[in-house]
Amino acid sequence: MSKPLNVTQKLIKSHLVDGEMKPGEEIGLRIDQTLTQDATGTMVMLELEAMELEEAQTELSCQYVDHNLIQTDYKNPDDHVFLKSAAEHFGMWFSRPGNGVSHPIETERFAIPGKTLAGSDSHTPASGCMGMLAIGAGGLDVAFAIAGEPMYMKMPKVLGVELKGELSDWVSAKDVVLEMLRRYDVDGATGYVIEYFGEGLKNLSTMDRHVLANMGTEMGATSTVFPADGEVRRFMESQHRGDEFVELVADEGAEYDKYEELILDDVEPLIALPSSPGNVVPVREVEGEDIYQSYVGSSANPGYRDFWIAAEIVRDKMVDDNVSFDINPTSRQIIENMVKNNVMFNLVQSGARIHQAGCNGCIGMGQAPASGQNSLRTVPRNFPDRSGTPEDSVFLVSPETAAASALTGKITDPRDLEDLYNMRYPVFEHPDELFINTEMLTEPKPKGKRGEIKKGPNISTMPDFDPLEDFEVPVLLKMGDDISTDEILRAGAEVLPFRSNIPEISKFTLDVVDKNFHDRAMQAKGEHGGHVVVAGENYAQGSSREHAAIAPRYLGQRAVIAKSYARIGWQNLINFGIPPLEFEHDADYEDIDQGDVLTVNDIRGAIKNGNEVVIHNKTKGNKYTVKHTFSDRQKEAVLHGGVINRFKARKKNGSG
Amino acid sequence: MSKPLNVTQKLIKSHLVDGEMKPGEEIGLRIDQTLTQDATGTMVMLELEAMELEEAQTELSCQYVDHNLIQTDYKNPDDHVFLKSAAEHFGMWFSRPGNGVSHPIETERFAIPGKTLAGSDSHTPASGCMGMLAIGAGGLDVAFAIAGEPMYMKMPKVLGVELKGELSDWVSAKDVVLEMLRRYDVDGATGYVIEYFGEGLKNLSTMDRHVLANMGTEMGATSTVFPADGEVRRFMESQHRGDEFVELVADEGAEYDKYEELILDDVEPLIALPSSPGNVVPVREVEGEDIYQSYVGSSANPGYRDFWIAAEIVRDKMVDDNVSFDINPTSRQIIENMVKNNVMFNLVQSGARIHQAGCNGCIGMGQAPASGQNSLRTVPRNFPDRSGTPEDSVFLVSPETAAASALTGKITDPRDLEDLYNMRYPVFEHPDELFINTEMLTEPKPKGKRGEIKKGPNISTMPDFDPLEDFEVPVLLKMGDDISTDEILRAGAEVLPFRSNIPEISKFTLDVVDKNFHDRAMQAKGEHGGHVVVAGENYAQGSSREHAAIAPRYLGQRAVIAKSYARIGWQNLINFGIPPLEFEHDADYEDIDQGDVLTVNDIRGAIKNGNEVVIHNKTKGNKYTVKHTFSDRQKEAVLHGGVINRFKARKKNGSG
Repeated sequence: MSKPLNVTQKLIKSHLVDGEMKPGEEIGLRIDQTLTQDATGTMVMLELEAMELEEAQTELSCQYVDHNLIQTDYKNPDDHVFLKSAAEHFGMWFSRPGNGVSHPIETERFAIPGKTLAGSDSHTPASGCMGMLAIGAGGLDVAFAIAGEPMYMKMPKVLGVELKGELSDWVSAKDVVLEMLRRYDVDGATGYVIEYFGEGLKNLSTMDRHVLANMGTEMGATSTVFPADGEVRRFMESQHRGDEFVELVADEGAEYDKYEELILDDVEPLIALPSSPGNVVPVREVEGEDIYQSYVGSSANPGYRDFWIAAEIVRDKMVDDNVSFDINPTSRQIIENMVKNNVMFNLVQSGARIHQAGCNGCIGMGQAPASGQNSLRTVPRNFPDRSGTPEDSVFLVSPETAAASALTGKITDPRDLEDLYNMRYPVFEHPDELFINTEMLTEPKPKGKRGEIKKGPNISTMPDFDPLEDFEVPVLLKMGDDISTDEILRAGAEVLPFRSNIPEISKFTLDVVDKNFHDRAMQAKGEHGGHVVVAGENYAQGSSREHAAIAPRYLGQRAVIAKSYARIGWQNLINFGIPPLEFEHDADYEDIDQGDVLTVNDIRGAIKNGNEVVIHNKTKGNKYTVKHTFSDRQKEAVLHGGVINRFKARKKNGSG
Repeated sequence: MSKPLNVTQKLIKSHLVDGEMKPGEEIGLRIDQTLTQDATGTMVMLELEAMELEEAQTELSCQYVDHNLIQTDYKNPDDHVFLKSAAEHFGMWFSRPGNGVSHPIETERFAIPGKTLAGSDSHTPASGCMGMLAIGAGGLDVAFAIAGEPMYMKMPKVLGVELKGELSDWVSAKDVVLEMLRRYDVDGATGYVIEYFGEGLKNLSTMDRHVLANMGTEMGATSTVFPADGEVRRFMESQHRGDEFVELVADEGAEYDKYEELILDDVEPLIALPSSPGNVVPVREVEGEDIYQSYVGSSANPGYRDFWIAAEIVRDKMVDDNVSFDINPTSRQIIENMVKNNVMFNLVQSGARIHQAGCNGCIGMGQAPASGQNSLRTVPRNFPDRSGTPEDSVFLVSPETAAASALTGKITDPRDLEDLYNMRYPVFEHPDELFINTEMLTEPKPKGKRGEIKKGPNISTMPDFDPLEDFEVPVLLKMGDDISTDEILRAGAEVLPFRSNIPEISKFTLDVVDKNFHDRAMQAKGEHGGHVVVAGENYAQGSSREHAAIAPRYLGQRAVIAKSYARIGWQNLINFGIPPLEFEHDADYEDIDQGDVLTVNDIRGAIKNGNEVVIHNKTKGNKYTVKHTFSDRQKEAVLHGGVINRFKARKKNGSG
């Protein structure tokens, strides 16, 4: 008799190809499906091209276009054309611009209980509502998954959340996940998969569960998982996919690394205050404040019900004069159902601005609020300035709270609608028939009809990188502690459009620290064949963006020497062939000055055979011992000049 | 017995407050209604504020928000909040963001036969479809109209276009106006009002006529006018405004300064090639070229019919895989009717991207095409790069041609649909009942409830300018011929967001010619109290933007001395109190060098009493005679330091 397993453990066990299921140990998982979106997918496609991949090796890979829909110039539409051609080239599905947000479409059209999904988007876990293990990852990890490689991660712990009872009127799934955030804040689930179970589940539809799974990311969770039960079957049947349903529930007696009880009856309308999803308080505590905007939509409240309830609340009424009531349907399928069932009419009649299906304002592509004014949104995040407005004031709420507040022009607990408008809580019934729209999901082309990758003038090929070699190069920059990837390669409207163009984006490398870094690096590349940088503690902290490794590499960075590294930044440096080395003695950091020339002899041998490298300071005449903690896989990657080179070499040798 | 009059003459005669109705003579017209939109209206509101206007003096003034809806940061939404508060402050109507495009809303909700309309948008003539005299003008002209001042213009000639017969299947109003553009090109109607008449009119609905009136602007016409006949009565009744209908038709025997016959039966599907509305050829000549985009909407094809016909054509079919099918409903009212009558469903089902009601891609706010790819649009203009994509390839077409081409993915003559899809031309019937939506048109507030004007951090008050005085200042810049307003103050995404902020936008003054102009001007302002500039022929040609006068004035420009001026640029300099002076002897231009110090004595007396001013070149020791050709009204404006100061002075003296 084997030990009873929870849903998470079953999913991991059935996909384990490497390692042991001990929390904290590295495991490798087989990936069945992948999801890429346009903001990260352009780099994934360039990586697949550089890897010389012939076709996607997964059961299903879909490239979505949902982030950059604004198209103020040629760069966004060129990316769309590029992604379509690349998806065709690699035999992937393509979700056309305007088809909608990746996560609900993935759930509606592709998610299958028992499968794994890797996505280059942090909200990929949303499809965990279907009994899937759905994980967000960096672009290169997803590229490798598309190429059929395992995905490596630390074995997570499982946080079991038992749902009991039933939600009260005017309270919905968003309030439940806000209650979780109230308890766990933005990092309380780090290292865990959150698994919901219990009798309270029966009162949450699959799309309600999508709300909870989506925002598990906000608590730092590796993923969120629900069982595939009768409700998932009902949902899949309504999507005309009943034949793909597989039951997946925890074994009786299954245990969790941590347990949490959540009584649904006790949840009240909640709101996350600016500017963190973890700043959760009851709506009552802030009611009455004027609002500028009420925003419904995004992957955090993507379901038909979420638009229906907002429409029912505003039906035959007019939103407040001062409120911009922005409706962002999550998919064309949802638009069709909204149109057919009068949801769209009721919203428009009440004063809504209807936007195209996509991520839109949730990722700062339009719909920014006015200065100093409050915006209520059903989106997953309210990090500072994410809306596009400096010092913004964005609150996270349920569709009920958003719609109630749109009517009054003030933050309003939706329960007050009973008195204010003599309104009963509208009870949602699933429509008898859903209109299914798959016309803008383009199927993979058959082999032989896949065509070439189309690149507009802003899309450059991934540069080739050399294998690791000895160097004699200057210390181009000496930095302090806590240098973030936002300093190494910042985001923002000026830089983001160049995310498919390494030569162009590299011009912004470290310019926050040193305006002339790019020019000096190009000079050092010409004169010395490259450079190194030196840093203090926690180098490359923050966002997971790969460009913070690719761009320095393009500029000839041969190594980083620091006191310590942030985890993902460290991984990215290895992935792109820059060895991240650590001082054995922190005092050596003090000895090095910017401009010193550092040399190394037989670095390949040192990395292959041990965990120490000796660096000579030619300028000062001193030498320093630096360490590394690479696994064998990582050593191989560094020696090859990055994981892409390693992949190509292994494929050439028939072992990849 | 007075001479029989055409509709244009009747409209002018009934509003004439100054001058004589002789073509070319200056006339002053009483303005009944005004229209301002957000891209130009922010400056109009700042001008009204500077004029210390208490309330709008027109019968009806409406401030629309339709241009800058993208809101990638706080600037657009701050403008929206500012415009709403300003409209309230001055007792004007306000059309909220997302309510739709000004021109069709003006026509649907406000236009009244026999009235005059001045609008700070070049497509204002669209409401000429209702038997109105509707004229586009610069912001300050519209500000004065709002303040109850007459609008001055040259008495236009009238081009009578007699419509005969009936349109063939698959041909619609857009093809008729393209036929006019084929004949008249982009300047053939300059100095004319185009007046349509004849038995062919009975086959064109009011919104069809709107298409023709809108794009009269593209031929350079002062306006376009239609009679207010039974069809206009039908239209107004369908809008629940039948009681406001007034018949207005030409007298029998009325004459036109020029006559054109247009036989509707002879019109075939036409297309304007890149990049001018005047490059018109039959669709047949370019059919078969691949397209990237098919775009329906804008003030040039705003009617419910235009969306209906596109929807009928694509119904139960899917647009080509490579086509972005962008639908831009012109107003919320039209969205509602589209939703109720399945138009929206058919469009979405076929693959359309539905955008919010507004100008959107027509003015380059999103929906830019990919590089080097063809875009077919029902919009009025395809000037180079207007779409946002450099070297764009935009074609102007009817909704029929746009929808047919969306299906095939190639430029397609819609008549071919009969063979390709076995389709009969869908015959449009006006719906029995229109849904009327006025909820987002906010009525003027009653006096006492109007509140203060709200200004975000990017909105600055109009600077105060001093009256004309003598000066001793340097020639800060000496320029050649044909300096355009795009060189004096450029447009584009970098500069446009500062259009409500004179101090900020002035930093871009003449930077195309001299990067340091702003800094040098601020220095000269401090040291010498200002500067002058010297130019060759045709100074300030091009766009009518007022900022090309306001910003230099803000930087201390005391006079321009040039060989000659473009008409509107000359007028704008006078309006903002910079005297545009002309060399008596062109040779004097050669004598002046940049940096020379010029002085003038008793410039006020010279301008008041004559048409010559003597300028001393203190550096060279020479003197030059310069001329001006100001009318008495203009002299007064220049002496006061601009028309706003003159207005305030007259109001103070009880004569304004």
